[in-house]
Amino acid sequence: MSDAHVVKNTIFGDAAQGSFDHRKYSAPAPVPAFNRTWPDNRITRAPIWVSEDLRDGNQALLEPMSVEQKQRLWHLILKIGIKEVMVGFPSASQPDYDFVRWLIDENQIPEDVTIAVLVQAREHLIARTFEALKGVHRAIIHIYSSTSTIQRERVFEKTRDDIKALACQGVTWVCDYAARYPETDWRIEYSPESFSETEPEYAVEVCEAVMAIVKPTREKPIIFNLPNTVEVASPNHYADQIEYFCQNISNRDAVVVSVHTHNDRGGAVAAAELALLAGADRVEGTLLGNGERTGNMDIVTLGMNLYSQGIDPQLDLSNPEEIIRTVSECTKLIVHPRHPWVGELVYTAFSGSHQDAIRKSLRNQRPEETWQVAYLPIDPRDIGRNYETVIRVNSQSGKAGMAFLLERDHGISLPRWMMLELAPIVQKASEKTTGELSSDDIRALLFKEFSPEQPYTLEHYRFDREGSTLSTRIREGDKVHVLEGQGNGVISAFVDAWHHYDSRPLSVTNYSEHAMGSGSDAKAIAFVQLNVDGVSVTGVAEDYDTGAASLRAILAAFDRAARQAS
Amino acid sequence: MSDAHVVKNTIFGDAAQGSFDHRKYSAPAPVPAFNRTWPDNRITRAPIWVSEDLRDGNQALLEPMSVEQKQRLWHLILKIGIKEVMVGFPSASQPDYDFVRWLIDENQIPEDVTIAVLVQAREHLIARTFEALKGVHRAIIHIYSSTSTIQRERVFEKTRDDIKALACQGVTWVCDYAARYPETDWRIEYSPESFSETEPEYAVEVCEAVMAIVKPTREKPIIFNLPNTVEVASPNHYADQIEYFCQNISNRDAVVVSVHTHNDRGGAVAAAELALLAGADRVEGTLLGNGERTGNMDIVTLGMNLYSQGIDPQLDLSNPEEIIRTVSECTKLIVHPRHPWVGELVYTAFSGSHQDAIRKSLRNQRPEETWQVAYLPIDPRDIGRNYETVIRVNSQSGKAGMAFLLERDHGISLPRWMMLELAPIVQKASEKTTGELSSDDIRALLFKEFSPEQPYTLEHYRFDREGSTLSTRIREGDKVHVLEGQGNGVISAFVDAWHHYDSRPLSVTNYSEHAMGSGSDAKAIAFVQLNVDGVSVTGVAEDYDTGAASLRAILAAFDRAARQAS
Repeated sequence: MSDAHVVKNTIFGDAAQGSFDHRKYSAPAPVPAFNRTWPDNRITRAPIWVSEDLRDGNQALLEPMSVEQKQRLWHLILKIGIKEVMVGFPSASQPDYDFVRWLIDENQIPEDVTIAVLVQAREHLIARTFEALKGVHRAIIHIYSSTSTIQRERVFEKTRDDIKALACQGVTWVCDYAARYPETDWRIEYSPESFSETEPEYAVEVCEAVMAIVKPTREKPIIFNLPNTVEVASPNHYADQIEYFCQNISNRDAVVVSVHTHNDRGGAVAAAELALLAGADRVEGTLLGNGERTGNMDIVTLGMNLYSQGIDPQLDLSNPEEIIRTVSECTKLIVHPRHPWVGELVYTAFSGSHQDAIRKSLRNQRPEETWQVAYLPIDPRDIGRNYETVIRVNSQSGKAGMAFLLERDHGISLPRWMMLELAPIVQKASEKTTGELSSDDIRALLFKEFSPEQPYTLEHYRFDREGSTLSTRIREGDKVHVLEGQGNGVISAFVDAWHHYDSRPLSVTNYSEHAMGSGSDAKAIAFVQLNVDGVSVTGVAEDYDTGAASLRAILAAFDRAARQAS
Repeated sequence: MSDAHVVKNTIFGDAAQGSFDHRKYSAPAPVPAFNRTWPDNRITRAPIWVSEDLRDGNQALLEPMSVEQKQRLWHLILKIGIKEVMVGFPSASQPDYDFVRWLIDENQIPEDVTIAVLVQAREHLIARTFEALKGVHRAIIHIYSSTSTIQRERVFEKTRDDIKALACQGVTWVCDYAARYPETDWRIEYSPESFSETEPEYAVEVCEAVMAIVKPTREKPIIFNLPNTVEVASPNHYADQIEYFCQNISNRDAVVVSVHTHNDRGGAVAAAELALLAGADRVEGTLLGNGERTGNMDIVTLGMNLYSQGIDPQLDLSNPEEIIRTVSECTKLIVHPRHPWVGELVYTAFSGSHQDAIRKSLRNQRPEETWQVAYLPIDPRDIGRNYETVIRVNSQSGKAGMAFLLERDHGISLPRWMMLELAPIVQKASEKTTGELSSDDIRALLFKEFSPEQPYTLEHYRFDREGSTLSTRIREGDKVHVLEGQGNGVISAFVDAWHHYDSRPLSVTNYSEHAMGSGSDAKAIAFVQLNVDGVSVTGVAEDYDTGAASLRAILAAFDRAARQAS
């Protein structure tokens, strides 16, 4: 639907009347005393993952998903390997009801996958929920009631005991209706909604009361899901709340502690991760973080966080492109180019020192070793990404990036002195474009500047190793110079020969040459730096013959000097 | 520049060759023993904020900013109230050099603002950096060198002592050049780059060596910036590293501990927040989180996190629209609709129970109280946002949202029984559209369904209070019924009168009426539920006269019954 449906009038008048004044707010109370151990813990295995894409995610969309879109997302969720899937609120929405029926009637739920449905603590809604689920092999009934101070005092205007009684009544109904459908393996999940703003001891009290009704066992545990409904504090605070709960709930073996975090303060993933340290067993989230307001915890990010520490995420995240495509087509939400692990700019390094470090550490990486590459916490190829976007060259990136590109794409390995020659030229060119230069652009700059190919052209050379004699024919416009010289190699003999034509003092200060690529048909590239009468000149040339490449590089240096002089 | 400049070939071959295998990776080593206190600490004041927008942010863009864009962003940074601003890498980039000269030559730096510039530990770059800063009143020279194991062993291939010597050499140069420009108040910042992957005791060792050269004092402290260069662990690990550093660095009073976090694991804000608990004094970040790869810590989010806990952020974040506009125009990056605090969907609640809770807690909120509204951690008006986008109604949102919209936008307060009548109608309509319904849509549905205005129309009524007598004239198509009745009020007298026309048993089961808006010219709206011979029928009507509204509502119920029967 278009934005025309957004209502513009408000009962609060002009937004400009709001005042930016922090004194209206306060920090949440600290968690009561408990034995905090989580900062010393380490995560060693993946949690039970729960997809909330079809419920929390769907409910927060301007355009809720069609049944077809839900089906598409359902298939993706299964493909990734998520085994518990919240599929909706069938008592509150006909499309959710229809989707649940499709799952059951069309036999879409694999044996190892359990669906969950959400319901409020109201009898007629619970009745309709069980009706929606009729015939399912196994399912989680997720019932919730709000327990926070604000909800008790400002929304329900009820006492702690009243609110606890509501939760117990709801769970009692669930147990009663479950008994009417004995063919299904029912599991019960209860959320003290707004847990993050609930006094931890009261949350435990309500859950104990619920547990007394459900009577879970180690074999058939109850799920207590503890939502960071509105993220109101830093993630360590949430971890404290979770560990307090884990330590104070009785019958811990018969309880699956689940977390459901939101990103109101930008900490949804961190809160879930710290909650795992604090003892949580199960994490509810969505693919790429869709969900109410700022969204839910992103399963892809947390999964990759575990993966990058050597922990099996129990998820197949090897194809984030597919995840991005499906999720964004179903939700009509974009994925930010800097989204952790999968954003399009994540494996791109612009800074020269970063590029240099990546280049060097990649060179040192052995296949059998633990991955140790600077600035790349994982090998992007693991998730179908490549280094093709790692390095781009712009005016900020310095010489290392340029060297990397030439080596990667053209097999040209610049010696350090040559990098220093080329860098200011690339820098200048990139400042002119205000954008990035490709490796082709850089290669073109290298040859344009250092291999001008006139006025001097090598027409022929013959080096006689035995006699240490070089004969060469060089064209200078219409003229042809036939020169001979002696030396212990082609270059020194050429320098000697050149003296017959140009008597200025000449020495070779740097020389480097290498094959570009492998095999006998690979071209060589030569870099030469000369000192001609106190002036440094540099030339570059490529040729199938290494001798010709070096001589042509020397001539290119003369060419360049001539061009600069003219 | 266009994407055509992105190089497509790679030296790594086909990305599909990568394997999704967690065993290639390992978790970082735990931090050596120290006295961990940070989980018990609370943040009580804002850190020193440092904008990295013009350096880390700019360097990570496909198109680096023009000088004009930098100027625009500079003005925004100052307007927000950030007092330390990293302005670039003047020795590495001519635009950065030019921008620094513009700041100084055009006298753009206010007295209470300090600029910082970045430089590598190379003498010629340091020399050029001081040249760029000539004439500045006060500035921070930020010098860095990499210290992590990967950088030492895989990039530089040097020993710990070599790397420490490089840092010391760089800082010595900085001190030497600073002495040549005594007219400027120089401050020195050193970053052990890749601190997050550096052994904490070695980071301290390097910083101690640097400190021995700089000899900072309490009055002229050194800044040690400890980058979470690549975020490699959960934020508690970084907090441990920071607290270890704070406890082990000597001369703590003469040190400003600064943090610079990245979002590789989605925890940049959390890591900075936990680092503040761990003792950090200063935070480097960017507006909305631009920066290398996944971006830097977002100053807006962390600032709002503090704000929402009653801590003065020392930043004016009251106009995020301006921040979003300027930053996205300069960086050409989008801001995600679910971006914490400022994304366009953040103050939107679709869920019925959320909407209901917001409505009720808003009603209970007194102006002088601490803010206590469910699902809205702050009053959106504080940052120029409004409730106009808080509530939209779709098929997922239930009756509370619909009631909220009618009350907010039309002054119509539905009684609970009326909500139950209207809800399924709205639900059905919203399921048909697959999108959201506006408050106008809902109002139209209410009147269309419950106020059909035919066959019966109230032409006239007169109620004589003294005689408890009602005379009324009602049109039914071409016919006119003149009825009289008696009762202790208009409604009961009307019921009596109606019996003269229709003898079926009739009683009023629910009645509610209220003024929409205030003042003597406000219209009233009446809701009436009748039991006509065992069948419940409901009607709604509005009128300037309360008596006419209630009678017309009764007629509307008859109209609706007649329509349903036909």
